[in-house]
Amino acid sequence: MDTAIESLGVARIPSPLKHVQHVTDDECILYDSSARNVEQQIREGQTPVSFMKAGPRDFMYFDPSKLKCAVVTAGGLCPGLNNVIRAIVLTLYYSYGVRNVLGIRYGFQGLVPQYGHPILELTPKSVGDIAELGGTVLGSSRGPQSVEDMVDALERMNVGILFAIGGDGTMRAVSKICEGIRNRNAKISVIGIPKTIDNDISYMSRSFGFNTAVTVAAEVITAAHVEATGSPNGIGLVKLMGRRAGFIASYAALAKRDANFVLIPESDFDLEGPHGFLAVLEKRILDRKHAVIVVAEGAGQQYAHGEGTDESGNPRLGDIGIFLKEAIDEYFKGKGIELNLKYIDPSYTIRSVEATSDDAIFCTFLAQNAVHAGMAGKTNMVVGNWRDEYVYIPVDLVITGRKQVELDGKLWSSVLEATGQPSFKP
Amino acid sequence: MDTAIESLGVARIPSPLKHVQHVTDDECILYDSSARNVEQQIREGQTPVSFMKAGPRDFMYFDPSKLKCAVVTAGGLCPGLNNVIRAIVLTLYYSYGVRNVLGIRYGFQGLVPQYGHPILELTPKSVGDIAELGGTVLGSSRGPQSVEDMVDALERMNVGILFAIGGDGTMRAVSKICEGIRNRNAKISVIGIPKTIDNDISYMSRSFGFNTAVTVAAEVITAAHVEATGSPNGIGLVKLMGRRAGFIASYAALAKRDANFVLIPESDFDLEGPHGFLAVLEKRILDRKHAVIVVAEGAGQQYAHGEGTDESGNPRLGDIGIFLKEAIDEYFKGKGIELNLKYIDPSYTIRSVEATSDDAIFCTFLAQNAVHAGMAGKTNMVVGNWRDEYVYIPVDLVITGRKQVELDGKLWSSVLEATGQPSFKP
Amino acid sequence: MDTAIESLGVARIPSPLKHVQHVTDDECILYDSSARNVEQQIREGQTPVSFMKAGPRDFMYFDPSKLKCAVVTAGGLCPGLNNVIRAIVLTLYYSYGVRNVLGIRYGFQGLVPQYGHPILELTPKSVGDIAELGGTVLGSSRGPQSVEDMVDALERMNVGILFAIGGDGTMRAVSKICEGIRNRNAKISVIGIPKTIDNDISYMSRSFGFNTAVTVAAEVITAAHVEATGSPNGIGLVKLMGRRAGFIASYAALAKRDANFVLIPESDFDLEGPHGFLAVLEKRILDRKHAVIVVAEGAGQQYAHGEGTDESGNPRLGDIGIFLKEAIDEYFKGKGIELNLKYIDPSYTIRSVEATSDDAIFCTFLAQNAVHAGMAGKTNMVVGNWRDEYVYIPVDLVITGRKQVELDGKLWSSVLEATGQPSFKP
Amino acid sequence: MDTAIESLGVARIPSPLKHVQHVTDDECILYDSSARNVEQQIREGQTPVSFMKAGPRDFMYFDPSKLKCAVVTAGGLCPGLNNVIRAIVLTLYYSYGVRNVLGIRYGFQGLVPQYGHPILELTPKSVGDIAELGGTVLGSSRGPQSVEDMVDALERMNVGILFAIGGDGTMRAVSKICEGIRNRNAKISVIGIPKTIDNDISYMSRSFGFNTAVTVAAEVITAAHVEATGSPNGIGLVKLMGRRAGFIASYAALAKRDANFVLIPESDFDLEGPHGFLAVLEKRILDRKHAVIVVAEGAGQQYAHGEGTDESGNPRLGDIGIFLKEAIDEYFKGKGIELNLKYIDPSYTIRSVEATSDDAIFCTFLAQNAVHAGMAGKTNMVVGNWRDEYVYIPVDLVITGRKQVELDGKLWSSVLEATGQPSFKP
Repeated sequence: MDTAIESLGVARIPSPLKHVQHVTDDECILYDSSARNVEQQIREGQTPVSFMKAGPRDFMYFDPSKLKCAVVTAGGLCPGLNNVIRAIVLTLYYSYGVRNVLGIRYGFQGLVPQYGHPILELTPKSVGDIAELGGTVLGSSRGPQSVEDMVDALERMNVGILFAIGGDGTMRAVSKICEGIRNRNAKISVIGIPKTIDNDISYMSRSFGFNTAVTVAAEVITAAHVEATGSPNGIGLVKLMGRRAGFIASYAALAKRDANFVLIPESDFDLEGPHGFLAVLEKRILDRKHAVIVVAEGAGQQYAHGEGTDESGNPRLGDIGIFLKEAIDEYFKGKGIELNLKYIDPSYTIRSVEATSDDAIFCTFLAQNAVHAGMAGKTNMVVGNWRDEYVYIPVDLVITGRKQVELDGKLWSSVLEATGQPSFKP
Repeated sequence: MDTAIESLGVARIPSPLKHVQHVTDDECILYDSSARNVEQQIREGQTPVSFMKAGPRDFMYFDPSKLKCAVVTAGGLCPGLNNVIRAIVLTLYYSYGVRNVLGIRYGFQGLVPQYGHPILELTPKSVGDIAELGGTVLGSSRGPQSVEDMVDALERMNVGILFAIGGDGTMRAVSKICEGIRNRNAKISVIGIPKTIDNDISYMSRSFGFNTAVTVAAEVITAAHVEATGSPNGIGLVKLMGRRAGFIASYAALAKRDANFVLIPESDFDLEGPHGFLAVLEKRILDRKHAVIVVAEGAGQQYAHGEGTDESGNPRLGDIGIFLKEAIDEYFKGKGIELNLKYIDPSYTIRSVEATSDDAIFCTFLAQNAVHAGMAGKTNMVVGNWRDEYVYIPVDLVITGRKQVELDGKLWSSVLEATGQPSFKP
Repeated sequence: MDTAIESLGVARIPSPLKHVQHVTDDECILYDSSARNVEQQIREGQTPVSFMKAGPRDFMYFDPSKLKCAVVTAGGLCPGLNNVIRAIVLTLYYSYGVRNVLGIRYGFQGLVPQYGHPILELTPKSVGDIAELGGTVLGSSRGPQSVEDMVDALERMNVGILFAIGGDGTMRAVSKICEGIRNRNAKISVIGIPKTIDNDISYMSRSFGFNTAVTVAAEVITAAHVEATGSPNGIGLVKLMGRRAGFIASYAALAKRDANFVLIPESDFDLEGPHGFLAVLEKRILDRKHAVIVVAEGAGQQYAHGEGTDESGNPRLGDIGIFLKEAIDEYFKGKGIELNLKYIDPSYTIRSVEATSDDAIFCTFLAQNAVHAGMAGKTNMVVGNWRDEYVYIPVDLVITGRKQVELDGKLWSSVLEATGQPSFKP
Repeated sequence: MDTAIESLGVARIPSPLKHVQHVTDDECILYDSSARNVEQQIREGQTPVSFMKAGPRDFMYFDPSKLKCAVVTAGGLCPGLNNVIRAIVLTLYYSYGVRNVLGIRYGFQGLVPQYGHPILELTPKSVGDIAELGGTVLGSSRGPQSVEDMVDALERMNVGILFAIGGDGTMRAVSKICEGIRNRNAKISVIGIPKTIDNDISYMSRSFGFNTAVTVAAEVITAAHVEATGSPNGIGLVKLMGRRAGFIASYAALAKRDANFVLIPESDFDLEGPHGFLAVLEKRILDRKHAVIVVAEGAGQQYAHGEGTDESGNPRLGDIGIFLKEAIDEYFKGKGIELNLKYIDPSYTIRSVEATSDDAIFCTFLAQNAVHAGMAGKTNMVVGNWRDEYVYIPVDLVITGRKQVELDGKLWSSVLEATGQPSFKP
């Protein structure tokens, strides 16, 4: 893996930041923290994988007094978007003296003239209180737009740095826009700030909004527990976010320990049969009179068949929540057992809340480091966090894979321990 | 209307309460607060309607040292149930010295042997921390049970006072149980504490849990607003509780003023036509690019046809939320307008939360006054609050009608003002 | 008592409000809700005391298209101030079509030129999000200003209606300003919205911010309980607001039942002696190893001697919190008993929070009715709430007395029951 | 630095844990994440510092069926204590099958007979709901106890593993108890879980409760901001925890960006003089009419002289909050500038709250790993988190130093950027 990045040219303007340790490009953070692995690699003459450390550089590529920047948010809502927007604007303004920052409306649609979305001017005053609000003041949208149109717009508006906050699709768009820029030999930097409420980006210990999502999801699990214990044979069934990774479901289940079953995309389960989920659930209901089930939206896709793809190009998932609700109802009806199942799908009420303090601070650091990268003339990079250090990672690396819950790792074994659930396999 | 109540006999045991004003049965609270109306009635020789003032009486009917009481919760969950249970137990124990209090499990099922639910013993220690939890530690259930079975159980367990917390169906059950008790000439008092998260009980200014429900519902409306403004032509559609009355929808809409349309059972609306809801919504979307719609579950039942009745005997409502979601999607698709509709149905996450401080205090006062009523030998009464005074009202009066939002009253006119919505009628 | 008000002249302009019940001046709300008392008075030929019902009138005195209004907030912070400001502006704008609303900065200082505070323009946009914030966007100040200066400013700015939100001192100022206006025969209405976090205004069932204050205060009592139980012989001592009335202390103590002692201004207590507070506390500590004490700031003023008056002209209270802390420490040191006392004074963190939903709605109704009063040409009146009805009350009546906790009433008896505390008297 | 630990003997009993990756003692986590540093050390033949990875071991030293464990909490309250206690009990019970867990009351006092504190039995049921409460159900105390007495008690009660949760003093006690145990050749393991709300433990990226503390502290700063802007020349002055390290003050200031000045122990400041704090504050007040000051309790100790030491043996700090309040008041009075200073000291309301979800999960992982360590026969170790990995660190290493805010690091430079504050030095 390569840690080098493309540069727009040579950065020659001295950094205006005071009282701050500046970082050089050869300061790198080890990917692997295992002493044994790293020692072995080095002894064998290999270079261990590492990521470029984030932070202000000694020299800037752009002249702040002449620079215009733009910020865009794309994809679904995620707590912290406004915090990132605000911190980008404040850092550009107060740390670097950049006076022109544009807000692109409704995702990449805002860069395409035919949609007619107006451009916002972002100032310290206009972003001052936005972090108290959930969502994004810029609006968002899904789906790809014409790369030519978008690069045209950036050139026409004379944008020097574009900060793109969004998910998988957005990072792929960043990669393509950078290619378009390179083809024109334009002097535009694009820096990505990856957004995934599911926390499933490779090479990133943590993504913003995840902490908030887990906090709210844990409250919903408590609600499900209250409903489940409130009636005879009560079942609280909660569907949580997690298309390909069950991090939210797993962490939320650990936060309160009210969940009795956690179903995630990473772990297949049988529905029928003596060891299947329904039989185990029946045993629990007969023994304990209530159960709380947490299911990630991407779990059990062999049962809940989705069709086609959504606007962002992701395969459309089948609705495992509704499927399970109906499968459980039918199973217990067949057994002649009265059941009180309450189904909760809190998706939007999780995505739209204000960030926790912890996420708010995290967003601030991400944004500051995104600005440092852009000012130094880096491009086609994202800012991330690896083992408590802020790092710059090539976009193309980030979009190649996804993180998942390891089934023999400490997270999932804690979940198994907390729930006591079996494997649902013969 | 008659304010007299049935009594079990003559209460002769002096009240043990110190430092407290005792109340006599002829202290009554005027139903009507209009000076003009009351004066006119009196001048015309009529007796204005009034409710018996709640509070401790000089004499008790039951001897605390020999008394056994029972508490039952029935119907759907509502914030504050545990607060009422706790305060009944603490008041019986500390104010009156009653040492035996039973918790009946899973509603009236708990009084019917065939279900086999065990009985709980409730002590100050066992109820000490329950108010931090939502739901009911007793569990609940819906649907009627045999009156004979229930009165049998009360006699067999030697219960002197039964405190029944529940909705409409529960209050009807209280009435029938009292009839059954009277027929046997048994010495059992039954006191109701009406529960309706919808706040639609006649002759009651307020019901417990409503304050909490509005608080949480208002947060959900904010979430819908964030989602609506987060994408182009965004619509946040929230379905709230309110089978026959739109109080939660109306108050929650006033709390934050993010709602643009509020649809309640009391106010019919046209869906189609130039003044219909869909046309007005289209205009709003074209003008403002987003809209927040709050719909009470009982609204628009001419469109969302429900069938049959539920376990509590209430007519089953059609799902107006899903109906509206689909009608809106179809309408805009027909017009070729892209739409981003997010549908939120938070029912269980509202019903299951811990009570607000305000509701917690209210529940305490209701429970204390319920205990005062029972100890004084009243029966077939409910405890309520009328214009800031706690009162006792005959059960049979309470179950005769329902409160609704007055369409020319101050609440609805405030909602119309806050939303700016028209009448949706030609 | 007289329910008539002074009027600026005859209101002749028809109300623009649609779909709303208008109210006439002779619709009055009975002060006393006791059926017996009211009947007796009427039979004896007396007119029972009543308050004029609030609401829109058929005719307006001011022409909205030419009207300029002003809003001022004075005194200490209280949750809900921004909600009142916002609802005044929105009601003036959307319901009546008033386009000019001024925000007076820093209380009555803002009407006095020498302070040089600028005037704000208040529009639906500028007040749109302010209710999410605690405090007052106008700022506030204490202390009286020259009536002549203030009336000069109102005339100079051509203000038709002044909405004054504030406490006791503010209401006295309203009375004097109205007198000054009358002396000049000016056509200016002044409407008061009484603010008292202590909830101690006579003739008002409830004041805005009180619900919020109790909610936060209850959480602080829980914190004190946690600290008290966290160490051997732990004492949590909480000082709450309540200069002359112990409503916050009493209600907050009821909300969670963690308090073991509640000391309020209305109830004297002995400190020393076998029945005094210190001896009772010692007994509790020896028996139970911890205690939670809630003291209202105005309690025990015979011990904590205050001197002089504050800027608002109120007598300066001695600090009973610090006094008790020291007295308890010394007493137990004298007895050789190790103690872990944690003292909490949360005043500003209570005053500055966002209003609860319940207070937010209440503030909206108060503000709407204040606007209705002003538009109808009423002056020298306040808007209040009496037994669930909004009413107009002459300012001069409101400033004549204060509400206190009745020591033989239901509130205090509930507190005594919840805490089990004795009278602290021989 | 040495990563070896003392062992009680050879662990021979196979681990009962299923579906979990077991860890071996030679899996170590690199202390330094810098690729350059690590490579250089290895090339130079040095062994880079690393910590033993936490997790279940293949073999246990103790036989669960015969093992008795004990848990003690010492020092000041910190959010998460009950979460740690609960997770220790649940992990011992459900993962390892240990049936005897004792709760030691009121810190190490509970091991000393003369105090007479009873021992609690901890079971899954008794700890089931304790995580909803702040504080510690065991109680706590400060100050050292006789090592002989404590080891006597452990032997007398036949305790195999003692889990000690506490601060600096507690970890020093662990070290001494282990020495005492070794001297007697007893077979007792002691595992520490370091507690410091200040987050200032060396070699630990994070300590439990810190996330919660920052969350609540940020809300208090918002309250101070509301108060400061609520009156002319308003100052909100907040004293936060942080005896020797300003982490809480710094992070809380970043969470909301309402703070204008942050004073921490690591950064000296001049009070007087043209560049001193008071002059800079005056300029801000004259320019902006309000200011928010956050001061960590250990800041400015050259001004606020403390005397002696507290019960835990820490030097008693002078009260910098009160000192600053008085110094500011006096300074502005001297300048003839009216000031409205509101002082907030929220210490206990921060220490006593329920843990955030994030801290709750963190506490669970810490506790599980503490149990794994104890069961494997490790002793005199603490469990910690280093760069997202759970590790075991020798107690003696942990008590040798303290973490502080680096004045040229990214945290402090973000704070300087967020506040815009100068160095307060000539």
